[in-house]
Amino acid sequence: MTEVPRSHPRYESLKTRERLVEGVESGITSKAGLIAHGRGEAFDYLLGEKTIPAAERAERYALGVLKKAENPVISINGNVAALVPDEIVNLGEYLSAKLEVNLFHRTEERLKKIEEKLRENGAEDVLGLEADAEIPGLDHDRALCSKKGIYSADVVLVPLEDGDRTKALKEMGKTVVTIDLNPLSRTAKTADVTIVDNVTRAVPNMIDMEPLKEEFDNEKNLSEVLDYMGERLKGLTKNKITEEDMDGR
Amino acid sequence: MTEVPRSHPRYESLKTRERLVEGVESGITSKAGLIAHGRGEAFDYLLGEKTIPAAERAERYALGVLKKAENPVISINGNVAALVPDEIVNLGEYLSAKLEVNLFHRTEERLKKIEEKLRENGAEDVLGLEADAEIPGLDHDRALCSKKGIYSADVVLVPLEDGDRTKALKEMGKTVVTIDLNPLSRTAKTADVTIVDNVTRAVPNMIDMEPLKEEFDNEKNLSEVLDYMGERLKGLTKNKITEEDMDGR
Repeated sequence: MTEVPRSHPRYESLKTRERLVEGVESGITSKAGLIAHGRGEAFDYLLGEKTIPAAERAERYALGVLKKAENPVISINGNVAALVPDEIVNLGEYLSAKLEVNLFHRTEERLKKIEEKLRENGAEDVLGLEADAEIPGLDHDRALCSKKGIYSADVVLVPLEDGDRTKALKEMGKTVVTIDLNPLSRTAKTADVTIVDNVTRAVPNMIDMEPLKEEFDNEKNLSEVLDYMGERLKGLTKNKITEEDMDGR
Repeated sequence: MTEVPRSHPRYESLKTRERLVEGVESGITSKAGLIAHGRGEAFDYLLGEKTIPAAERAERYALGVLKKAENPVISINGNVAALVPDEIVNLGEYLSAKLEVNLFHRTEERLKKIEEKLRENGAEDVLGLEADAEIPGLDHDRALCSKKGIYSADVVLVPLEDGDRTKALKEMGKTVVTIDLNPLSRTAKTADVTIVDNVTRAVPNMIDMEPLKEEFDNEKNLSEVLDYMGERLKGLTKNKITEEDMDGR
């Protein structure tokens, strides 16, 4: 990929994109993961590419839920491994949570490459390859998981998860925390705690935060996010869209 | 790619996405094109994945402009060739417009593969490979075009175009029509006629329409699109987000 100058107004976003394309080239990220990332970029733009107050509140609440869990598990896919390999391993340690590789487009090769990437970043145990259990209600490939990981977890953190799988995890009685830039996704609506933020901000944020002490209503929190995005779109209209914003590329 | 079950609630969207991934695998689409598609998906969702009235008006106006042109040219990139190869050839015939392959990430190999794809879908002449002219104001690779195509066109239809190129075409005095799901893109703001719609709908739509007879103000039309998207986001809040919508994939 061509070098992006640090002075570029969209430097952070372009560097993030490069990390993902490198992920595809090294076999960690699926091509479908690039498309999912592009969609995330659009929603992130509507957030102003920052952690908005509603997201911060969800992060703090999620932190409390994960800290109190008996067997918390963090599910890791190809986008997470490409974008925040170091930060997700740190979060796992901080929460004493297990790490499990879990792919929508599952191949043995990608599982191994992601496991390796996490080990390079300091992970000791990485679950997922053993695939000795199944999540009920999903077709075989999507159902595979680890018995001592996701299968027996009480709380799962599933960043960027598929809607069907989120639903199946809920039906198993688990508490599901997700990080998803799309507040309209089925995952966002199904999870117990939905953090609408970029994983590149949410994951490091959670290590530095105080767990939320107040009540938390996920549906209300999501509404707040949608209102924020809607207002921002309309604000951009009023300002005649003069700011440096995303272009066609 | 693994098979997406037909029962998946977002089967259509996932199949479209697969067509693009296949485009990458067959050398027609670039990896950056996948991210761009993902971003388009998000904006399409804000349209309700349908042609909204403002888009229909822009399509009808564009149709009139293209029909009246002396030398209309349709510019075709890797995403267009992967998504609507058949429909774009039909539109070219219907408008008596030339087809020219024009790539942001230009390689001889991709040009040839796209030309071949268009021929398989019934195109007789496909311009672009000869690259015997340059658009002023762009670096060499981005500037290359066909003398009897884009270079001498009075009206160009550039679906999913780069902002810099759109600007350069305008500076040559051409009338630029674009199809772009992102109403905030530089292309959307620079073009004379901006159709904010999915190419998979806009291209077949234009064959069946009556040209617009009323006046058309592109800036006003774009504001209407942004308002529509903003209202829809807020409406989804009020409706407690109950409809079947896009998920994390």
